[in-house]
Amino acid sequence: MEQIDGKALILACSAIGAGLAMIAGIGPGIGQGFAAGKGAEAVGRQPGAQSDILRTMLLGAAVAETTGIYGLIVAIILLFANPLISKYMSLIG
Amino acid sequence: MEQIDGKALILACSAIGAGLAMIAGIGPGIGQGFAAGKGAEAVGRQPGAQSDILRTMLLGAAVAETTGIYGLIVAIILLFANPLISKYMSLIG
Amino acid sequence: MEQIDGKALILACSAIGAGLAMIAGIGPGIGQGFAAGKGAEAVGRQPGAQSDILRTMLLGAAVAETTGIYGLIVAIILLFANPLISKYMSLIG
Amino acid sequence: MEQIDGKALILACSAIGAGLAMIAGIGPGIGQGFAAGKGAEAVGRQPGAQSDILRTMLLGAAVAETTGIYGLIVAIILLFANPLISKYMSLIG
Amino acid sequence: MEQIDGKALILACSAIGAGLAMIAGIGPGIGQGFAAGKGAEAVGRQPGAQSDILRTMLLGAAVAETTGIYGLIVAIILLFANPLISKYMSLIG
Amino acid sequence: MEQIDGKALILACSAIGAGLAMIAGIGPGIGQGFAAGKGAEAVGRQPGAQSDILRTMLLGAAVAETTGIYGLIVAIILLFANPLISKYMSLIG
Amino acid sequence: MEQIDGKALILACSAIGAGLAMIAGIGPGIGQGFAAGKGAEAVGRQPGAQSDILRTMLLGAAVAETTGIYGLIVAIILLFANPLISKYMSLIG
Amino acid sequence: MEQIDGKALILACSAIGAGLAMIAGIGPGIGQGFAAGKGAEAVGRQPGAQSDILRTMLLGAAVAETTGIYGLIVAIILLFANPLISKYMSLIG
Amino acid sequence: MEQIDGKALILACSAIGAGLAMIAGIGPGIGQGFAAGKGAEAVGRQPGAQSDILRTMLLGAAVAETTGIYGLIVAIILLFANPLISKYMSLIG
Amino acid sequence: MEQIDGKALILACSAIGAGLAMIAGIGPGIGQGFAAGKGAEAVGRQPGAQSDILRTMLLGAAVAETTGIYGLIVAIILLFANPLISKYMSLIG
Amino acid sequence: MEQIDGKALILACSAIGAGLAMIAGIGPGIGQGFAAGKGAEAVGRQPGAQSDILRTMLLGAAVAETTGIYGLIVAIILLFANPLISKYMSLIG
Amino acid sequence: MEQIDGKALILACSAIGAGLAMIAGIGPGIGQGFAAGKGAEAVGRQPGAQSDILRTMLLGAAVAETTGIYGLIVAIILLFANPLISKYMSLIG
Amino acid sequence: MEQIDGKALILACSAIGAGLAMIAGIGPGIGQGFAAGKGAEAVGRQPGAQSDILRTMLLGAAVAETTGIYGLIVAIILLFANPLISKYMSLIG
Amino acid sequence: MEQIDGKALILACSAIGAGLAMIAGIGPGIGQGFAAGKGAEAVGRQPGAQSDILRTMLLGAAVAETTGIYGLIVAIILLFANPLISKYMSLIG
Repeated sequence: MEQIDGKALILACSAIGAGLAMIAGIGPGIGQGFAAGKGAEAVGRQPGAQSDILRTMLLGAAVAETTGIYGLIVAIILLFANPLISKYMSLIG
Repeated sequence: MEQIDGKALILACSAIGAGLAMIAGIGPGIGQGFAAGKGAEAVGRQPGAQSDILRTMLLGAAVAETTGIYGLIVAIILLFANPLISKYMSLIG
Repeated sequence: MEQIDGKALILACSAIGAGLAMIAGIGPGIGQGFAAGKGAEAVGRQPGAQSDILRTMLLGAAVAETTGIYGLIVAIILLFANPLISKYMSLIG
Repeated sequence: MEQIDGKALILACSAIGAGLAMIAGIGPGIGQGFAAGKGAEAVGRQPGAQSDILRTMLLGAAVAETTGIYGLIVAIILLFANPLISKYMSLIG
Repeated sequence: MEQIDGKALILACSAIGAGLAMIAGIGPGIGQGFAAGKGAEAVGRQPGAQSDILRTMLLGAAVAETTGIYGLIVAIILLFANPLISKYMSLIG
Repeated sequence: MEQIDGKALILACSAIGAGLAMIAGIGPGIGQGFAAGKGAEAVGRQPGAQSDILRTMLLGAAVAETTGIYGLIVAIILLFANPLISKYMSLIG
Repeated sequence: MEQIDGKALILACSAIGAGLAMIAGIGPGIGQGFAAGKGAEAVGRQPGAQSDILRTMLLGAAVAETTGIYGLIVAIILLFANPLISKYMSLIG
Repeated sequence: MEQIDGKALILACSAIGAGLAMIAGIGPGIGQGFAAGKGAEAVGRQPGAQSDILRTMLLGAAVAETTGIYGLIVAIILLFANPLISKYMSLIG
Repeated sequence: MEQIDGKALILACSAIGAGLAMIAGIGPGIGQGFAAGKGAEAVGRQPGAQSDILRTMLLGAAVAETTGIYGLIVAIILLFANPLISKYMSLIG
Repeated sequence: MEQIDGKALILACSAIGAGLAMIAGIGPGIGQGFAAGKGAEAVGRQPGAQSDILRTMLLGAAVAETTGIYGLIVAIILLFANPLISKYMSLIG
Repeated sequence: MEQIDGKALILACSAIGAGLAMIAGIGPGIGQGFAAGKGAEAVGRQPGAQSDILRTMLLGAAVAETTGIYGLIVAIILLFANPLISKYMSLIG
Repeated sequence: MEQIDGKALILACSAIGAGLAMIAGIGPGIGQGFAAGKGAEAVGRQPGAQSDILRTMLLGAAVAETTGIYGLIVAIILLFANPLISKYMSLIG
Repeated sequence: MEQIDGKALILACSAIGAGLAMIAGIGPGIGQGFAAGKGAEAVGRQPGAQSDILRTMLLGAAVAETTGIYGLIVAIILLFANPLISKYMSLIG
Repeated sequence: MEQIDGKALILACSAIGAGLAMIAGIGPGIGQGFAAGKGAEAVGRQPGAQSDILRTMLLGAAVAETTGIYGLIVAIILLFANPLISKYMSLIG
């Protein structure tokens, strides 16, 4: 019946865009893993300072998490609250 | 009978997008492996601090896991609860 | 009914562009994770200077966050306040 | 007889998507190998702490395994329980 | 009604271009994170020189920020003050 | 006689997908080789701990092997028990 | 009314070209961040030589900035003073 | 006489897929070479432990070989016992 | 009115080419930043030799600048003194 | 006379596939070169253990060679004993 | 009037080729920057040998410059003395 | 007169495939250069063991050469004794 | 008048090929810069051996230059003495 | 008059293939430069062993040169003694 139309193109590209946005997760994955390794090493050297090391590591990793979360947010927006298709529908009225 | 239509394009691109989202797993894989190696090294040096080192390593690795899980979440959404196709169906009503 | 038109192309490319912009998050993710690891290491060596180390690390990581936020901003603009489609609509009047 | 239709496109893209998802395995492969090497090194230095080192290494590697398993899960879903094609069939009724 | 025309092509490519420009943020993200880590390390060694280290680190990071800001500027121009489409409109007058 | 049809497209993409899935083997290859080198180095330093080092190295390498095996599994499924084409045949009945 | 014409192609490719030019910013971002980190480290070791270290670091970073600025210049030219479209207009008179 | 048909597409893609699968050989090549270098270094330090080092190195390298062999297996299957084309022939009867 | 003609193709590809040429700036950006970091480190160790270090660093960075400038020159030529379009116009006279 | 037919497509893709398969040679090339360098270094430190070092290095390099040979085998099969085209000929009878 | 003809294709591809040739500048940029950093470090250690170090560094950097200049030469030839279009004109006479 | 036919496609793809196969030369080039550098370093430390070092280095480099030669062999076969085109000619008789 | 013909395609691809060939210059650029940096460092340690170090460095860099020159030669041949177009002209004579 | 025919396609792809083959020069360029740097460093430490170091370095670099020369050979064959076009001419006789 219907052919590929503008709505389908926007939604299909949103799926690709959501996948691309998740690739940003490579960065925090490597970085936080580095932090975890260095933290474990530091605890091994100064077991007495464990709570301090842990707090520092987790705080730093939490900051590093942000860009991964940004990617997730953009992907979730593209999937569940896609403003592009809403815009399109309002435009073609 | 039917030809390639908008629904098929959206679902096909969702499959590609889900695959792209999983590539984010390269990051946590490398990072957590680094953490595991550093943790094993630290335990080898301070066997007495094993539980502390292990806790630090696992906590850090758990944080690093998140972006991999984000990718999985996006892929699962694209596969099982694809909101794009639902949106599309409601639009072409 | 309608075919792929200019509005759909702009909005579809906006979805791809938003995904590309999030890839910038790889950088801060790696960098901040490095900072977190080095910070944890430093705290392990000088537990007494923890607050100073933490402040330095968080300040530096906050600066490193910026380019990730820039990417988020551009993606959000592309999604929610897409000026390109507004421009287009005003042009074709 | 039949030409390339929507069902074929979805299933063909699922095959590509499954292949892409497996590429995530590069990360755990490198990371766990690093852990294995560091673990062997640590055992060589402290043979007495072998069981502790081994436990730490395997625990860390098990966490690093997860993103590889996520990729496998997504690929298996795409292959054996492809929800996209089911969705499509229910849509075109 | 209307088909893909020149205005749509320019605006769609602007969305892609804005996304590409943000990828430059990978650089400052890695660099500033390195700076943050080294700064935290230095503070850990010389807590007394904290303000000096912090000033140096932030000054250097501010310079490193510039290319990320350049990318943001170009993206913002492409989105909000797109001179290409203005030029095009004046040309086809 | 017959032209390119849906069945051929699915099977052809399965061949490409199987090839892509095998690329994951780069990771375990590098990682396990690192483990082998570190293991040989450790044995050279502590020949008396050879059996312990060997056990640790092989255990770690066995874990690292998994993602390579996942890729092989997906490729073999795509080749010998391709559920996509079965699905397609049952759909077009 | 009008279709994709030469003017639109030139301006659309200018948007892509401006985005590509900004990617050069990855280089100065990494380099200047390295400089900032090394500078902070040096100040931490020789707080007395802070002004000298700072001057050297900033001078070096300023030189490293240049290629990022070149990219910005080319992007700005492509956007605001696009000589290609002017040339084209003068040619087709 | 005949044109490009489904059989040719499947077999042509099998040739590309076999080539892609062999790229996995980059990993074991680098990893085993690292093992060989570390092994030679260890033998040079402890010539008396040569047989032990050699055994460890070869065992580790044998494990690293596996993913390369997986790639070869998939390529050979694609070339000599291509189950995709058999499936296709049985389907089109 | 007019369609895409040879003049537009040449000028559009010039815009892409100018963007590609600027990517060369990644190199000097990383290199000069390394030089700046090493210079700051050296000044921190030998504040007395600051002018000598600075001169060496700046001379070396100036040489490293050249390939970035080459890229800028080629981009500027492509934009402002595009000899390709002049050639083309003289040919189709 | 004849146009591009299925036989030509299979054979042309076999040429591309053979080229792709040879790229695997990057891995053994880097790895074996590392082994050669480490071996030469080890001989320079312990000239008396030269035959032992040489044997270890060559054995390890021989193992690393395998994936390169796999690539060669697949390429040679694709070129000289192409089973894909034989299959195709038997199918189209 | 005129359409895309051979002359335009050659000149457009020359613009792309010139941009590709400039990418070679990444190499000398990184290399010479490394040389500048090492030179500054060496001067900081041996201020007395400054002229010797400078001469060595500049000589080495001059040699490293060559491939960047080769790229510039090829780009300039493609732009200003394009022998391909001359050849073409003489051929179609 | 004649158009692009199967023979031309096979031979054109053989040219591309030969070029791809040569890229494998990146590996041995880096590896053997590493070996040469390590060999020169070793000779500088132990000039008396020069012949032994040289023999080890050359033997190792000879092994590393093989994958480069494999690439050359495949390219030469594709160029001078192209079995694909022979096969094709015998098939279309 | 004339359309895109074989002569134009060959010459246009020669321009792309010449640009690709110049990319090889990345290698010598990095390598020779490394040599220059190491040479400067060596001179700084042993100013008395400057002429010997310089001679070694330049000789080595001259050898490293060769592959860059090969790229230039191939580009120059493609541009100024293009044997492909000569061959083509003699064939269609 | 004539259109793009098989001869033109083969020769055009030969130009691309020759360019691809030259990219192999990145490897020897980096490797030989490493050798030159290590050689200069070794001469600086042991000026008395200069001739021995030089001989080792040049021998090793000569071996590393080979894959670059292979690329040149393949490119030259593709350009000047293109056996593919000869084959084609003899086939279409």
